[in-house]
Amino acid sequence: MLKALIFDVFGTVVDWRSGVAREVGAAFGERVDALAFADAWRGRYQPAMEGIRSGNRGYVALDILHRENLDATLAAFGLEGAIDEAGRVDLNRAWEKLPPWPDSVPGLTALKTRYAIAPCSNGSIALMTWLAKFGGLRWDAILGAEIAQDYKPQPAVYLKSAAALGLEPEEVMMVAAHNSDLAAARAAGLKTGFFPRPTEHGPGQTTDLEPSEDWDVVAADLQDLAHRLLP
Amino acid sequence: MLKALIFDVFGTVVDWRSGVAREVGAAFGERVDALAFADAWRGRYQPAMEGIRSGNRGYVALDILHRENLDATLAAFGLEGAIDEAGRVDLNRAWEKLPPWPDSVPGLTALKTRYAIAPCSNGSIALMTWLAKFGGLRWDAILGAEIAQDYKPQPAVYLKSAAALGLEPEEVMMVAAHNSDLAAARAAGLKTGFFPRPTEHGPGQTTDLEPSEDWDVVAADLQDLAHRLLP
Repeated sequence: MLKALIFDVFGTVVDWRSGVAREVGAAFGERVDALAFADAWRGRYQPAMEGIRSGNRGYVALDILHRENLDATLAAFGLEGAIDEAGRVDLNRAWEKLPPWPDSVPGLTALKTRYAIAPCSNGSIALMTWLAKFGGLRWDAILGAEIAQDYKPQPAVYLKSAAALGLEPEEVMMVAAHNSDLAAARAAGLKTGFFPRPTEHGPGQTTDLEPSEDWDVVAADLQDLAHRLLP
Repeated sequence: MLKALIFDVFGTVVDWRSGVAREVGAAFGERVDALAFADAWRGRYQPAMEGIRSGNRGYVALDILHRENLDATLAAFGLEGAIDEAGRVDLNRAWEKLPPWPDSVPGLTALKTRYAIAPCSNGSIALMTWLAKFGGLRWDAILGAEIAQDYKPQPAVYLKSAAALGLEPEEVMMVAAHNSDLAAARAAGLKTGFFPRPTEHGPGQTTDLEPSEDWDVVAADLQDLAHRLLP
């Protein structure tokens, strides 16, 4: 029996691209293409985690990777001299201030009445906690990478998140707008729920517009997922 | 500046004694003194954790210690044959169904508007999550023993709970109805908040009726603590 739902967060629950761009715009104004900067910053996300997944580097929280990636992105945009240390610390907090998609809060609030809900994100406990307070995401617990000391799609992240709730993998559904995340969760024995976020990467997005497998639930958005899982 | 409050749970936020006794009564009816059984079960709590604090045993979640202690308590009460394995698994879940004290939910809900709030309990993430759902405790994160892989009052439990929020110890207040918990938190550099729970151990309680040190905040109960910490 399904007892908990765990969620990808960046892209699935919150709109990282417009949220990061807003903070970049607040820091630099007209001097920088804020959406291009957000895409470039996020573009360094997977390569940074790969060093940890491969075992070449011990686990460090995503906040630290975000900061390293910020410094590299600033350099790539010729902005190294345009922002001091305090400004960089503050800008790195952009990831704690990302707007939920409009259906996210009502969908989560409905699901919480019947299931335990928690992020299973690559974000740290701190990042997920402050992001939830910013956006009104009423999680029951904060699970994911920091609990497992590794990064998705490593199976330990899904398995340790289920175990931290005292549940078997099949009692937990991984929910994501990314097919690759769900493929890894299914391989680990979890149930899977999908809905698309067709503008996560902007108007020209070509990825994850459709489910790539027969996921256990396919919905239009998070609120629709709640309708399908509640009586 | 104070940014988060972390809470002892058993005794401070919830009434474990009457909650456990209710479940024991439901399992055995008139055959057992339910309050005496609850006291005896809880009496094995500190000795069980001591084996882990001392390093003689690796970290195991409190749910496992509770189950070992349940089996020993059943034997001590001559009830070994009175309950099967499924019954024991179910009775061990008594700790997930403890009633909050009347002021706990309004106090936490008020504090949550300004601070991050989380348990810093010896209970596991699973136990804290299901207990919160049972009682309507709207935590922002679940911190404490499982994050630190050790048991209070070891300093790592307080320090890793603060670090998991990305905060310095002095930005976090430990709140407890137990002076010894606060002494350990203060020694680790955290702020401290106290209120008494004079009937935690029943009508004859003689411990923790008063603050033993000049804690940073001393209140009448959790709701009064919220009044003192909010503008």
